[in-house]
Amino acid sequence: MNIITIGREFGSGGRELGEKLAELLSYDYYDSRIITAIADNKGLSADYVEKTLDNYSSGNVTFAFASTFSMSGAGDFNNIDLLVEQAKVVKALAEKGRDMVIVGRNADVYLAEYQPINIFVCADMSAKLERCRQRAKQGENLSDRQLARKIKSIDKNRKRMREFVGGNGWGDPHNYNLTVNTTCRNPKELAKTVAIYVRNEIDTKR
Amino acid sequence: MNIITIGREFGSGGRELGEKLAELLSYDYYDSRIITAIADNKGLSADYVEKTLDNYSSGNVTFAFASTFSMSGAGDFNNIDLLVEQAKVVKALAEKGRDMVIVGRNADVYLAEYQPINIFVCADMSAKLERCRQRAKQGENLSDRQLARKIKSIDKNRKRMREFVGGNGWGDPHNYNLTVNTTCRNPKELAKTVAIYVRNEIDTKR
Repeated sequence: MNIITIGREFGSGGRELGEKLAELLSYDYYDSRIITAIADNKGLSADYVEKTLDNYSSGNVTFAFASTFSMSGAGDFNNIDLLVEQAKVVKALAEKGRDMVIVGRNADVYLAEYQPINIFVCADMSAKLERCRQRAKQGENLSDRQLARKIKSIDKNRKRMREFVGGNGWGDPHNYNLTVNTTCRNPKELAKTVAIYVRNEIDTKR
Repeated sequence: MNIITIGREFGSGGRELGEKLAELLSYDYYDSRIITAIADNKGLSADYVEKTLDNYSSGNVTFAFASTFSMSGAGDFNNIDLLVEQAKVVKALAEKGRDMVIVGRNADVYLAEYQPINIFVCADMSAKLERCRQRAKQGENLSDRQLARKIKSIDKNRKRMREFVGGNGWGDPHNYNLTVNTTCRNPKELAKTVAIYVRNEIDTKR
């Protein structure tokens, strides 16, 4: 079984790259479906689960409390519980034993024992702004400054969440096999090269 | 004309990767020959030129002085003069108009106008220690701690020198198109993937 994890900056096109990569390799593909699975298992709305897991700052009091009291004081349900469920869902995917590409959710941390191939996708702020603008919902009228602040804030949360679940520096190329910059590039085009890299890695391992 | 620049951490195998890449692409290849050219042009020993250019800290007084007085007070010969010569030599290589791979020397900064494809090569300290041990000269008996300190110090100088010549953050993946981690990997094997990446990039540009 081969596992490819994709970490990415918000707006870098990491999801598109991962999706195309899975298609090129004929691997299973997971991103937001993980959120849906967590929500289903917990009887919560997917929207609530996504917001809670992706917003470290909203839960930092609970986190601090839980880690001080070894999580025993965490109660019936809180953010810690969602994180535990996330780890379970991600690990259950790996236990299926099928080749897969998994985007986000700190999958490289949870699945380290499987020695996945870890890819990180980054881009310049200007490129991320442009990509976000193209995908913006109708009526979303943030200024460049506001949008850049939003992007930075989301990535800051991802960084903190990764540290919280025990991962090394988010986005530090030492923690990934390959780091791809999508500035002025088409993520789907880049997926072709990444697919060749992955095939090469797998052939070399054999 | 296509230019590939390779930045690298000391001991990461970036030179081997670059050399193999040039061979695979049938491109011209430059690394220490640049030092020889600078030395020849200046009537100095290659050893002296290399030590001076690679040791920022030994020259920081001169650097500070020269930048305060707009380099006019730099005298007949000093480190600034060597840096100017380095820029000249690197630019002259590009002016030949031939496809090339160039390792180190902040070539991506000097040759930015040519929009080179910029690759950075990194590795974990344990991997770098092992690679340095394999290549150590006979009689070189540094402890792991001493060797790690040496590696860190060389990379710190590379980082400072890059900033001094006007480049953005050394090793920050936003400043390179692709960042390759050679930990537990053979740099020459990885060169094959990088070659495919480069060919893809060139095809897409056309």
